[in-house]
Amino acid sequence: MGLDLYLDLMSQPCRAVYIFAKKNGIPFQLRTVELLKGQHYTDSFAQVNPLRKVPALKDEDFILAESVAILLYLSHKYKTPDHWYPQDLQARAWVDEYLSWQHTALRSCCTWAMWQKMMFPVVLHQLVPQETLSYTLAELDSCLQLLETKFLRDQAFLTGPQISVADLMAITELMHPVSTGCQVFECRPKLDAWRRHVEAVVREDLFQEAHTVVLKAKDMPPLPAPTLKEKLLHSVWILLQ
Amino acid sequence: MGLDLYLDLMSQPCRAVYIFAKKNGIPFQLRTVELLKGQHYTDSFAQVNPLRKVPALKDEDFILAESVAILLYLSHKYKTPDHWYPQDLQARAWVDEYLSWQHTALRSCCTWAMWQKMMFPVVLHQLVPQETLSYTLAELDSCLQLLETKFLRDQAFLTGPQISVADLMAITELMHPVSTGCQVFECRPKLDAWRRHVEAVVREDLFQEAHTVVLKAKDMPPLPAPTLKEKLLHSVWILLQ
Repeated sequence: MGLDLYLDLMSQPCRAVYIFAKKNGIPFQLRTVELLKGQHYTDSFAQVNPLRKVPALKDEDFILAESVAILLYLSHKYKTPDHWYPQDLQARAWVDEYLSWQHTALRSCCTWAMWQKMMFPVVLHQLVPQETLSYTLAELDSCLQLLETKFLRDQAFLTGPQISVADLMAITELMHPVSTGCQVFECRPKLDAWRRHVEAVVREDLFQEAHTVVLKAKDMPPLPAPTLKEKLLHSVWILLQ
Repeated sequence: MGLDLYLDLMSQPCRAVYIFAKKNGIPFQLRTVELLKGQHYTDSFAQVNPLRKVPALKDEDFILAESVAILLYLSHKYKTPDHWYPQDLQARAWVDEYLSWQHTALRSCCTWAMWQKMMFPVVLHQLVPQETLSYTLAELDSCLQLLETKFLRDQAFLTGPQISVADLMAITELMHPVSTGCQVFECRPKLDAWRRHVEAVVREDLFQEAHTVVLKAKDMPPLPAPTLKEKLLHSVWILLQ
């Protein structure tokens, strides 16, 4: 028995948890739950996480869902370097602020962009009206604007001079639209410099390893089973509300 | 100079912050930002919170948005009793798990239910198709089921034997559909008992005070200004993504 992490690297918060654990040398057993095979709907996974979502953590008998909760739990338990989730009152509050904001802002834009540009047409064979996609991309643009002007400003990282879990949540999020060909960093020199800072701290090989699956997603074959398609469509609707 | 809280008690996370600060005797200046008057769109409020959302906190020169970040900041700064946001690793992780989950689950269902049952038809004079409302209420039902079976289980409070900030976030959320006549607690004896536990700890007078505005919302007059209507519709769309 030890630490089990239930992940699918197709999911952006799973990538954040994976990078955080690997980067900090936290020993864990990777339990892959393939979302596109519907493995999160199985009864055995529901025993681990009744919310039927990844990431999930099992540490002996202790079970935990939600990426933000998992990142904070790991940072506390393994006493990772302070910058990941600072003790300082204000510095920590800024990380908490970003971690809260992203749920209904960047996360939903990036997920929608990925589903509308790739998952619906390529994997589920469902066309998305141009107007819908344009709206999503405009929302993504607004979120990127806030990411730069409200959070990043003139700092090296989103919440201060050093990398925090907020940066991992954000970069893994942005790689979702990037994987579909969105030019997220072009014409945004500040955000591009930030990306390079984050990749340098994470290490390029770990960053690439975490993103191999999603960057190859556009080449995946269409999903055959109609029942699974229905379930996935319902699941993404819940996710995006 | 001191602590300023920018709130509108029509907003469910504002009510959570208000109850938490009052209950813990935290001295603050209430700065009301009336959402239905579009006061969050003003330039002066954008100086406080560029995200143009309430709640927002100003503590001398330190400015913070997002209800979860504000609750944690207040709990740390004012060293509120441990049960609100426990030091214990696992107990705190469960609070973090709920605080993460609610963003894209209970929060969106309760907000949608309130807007579709009341704000669209009564305040904005826009009818909502019955099918859309039925879908929202079914989603709300699923969320309430998870609230009982995944979080509350056989505990007195959502994340353990004592009240935490998770309970405040949840109860203020549920009062949104309650204000429109949804029978959230009927036929759910566990959830109803939990509600009584929370109200008993908060104190009935403070609970009522925080909810006076929302419980009277159904009697409010239709919104006159079309520009403001447009802005609010856009704003709620962003909120609900």
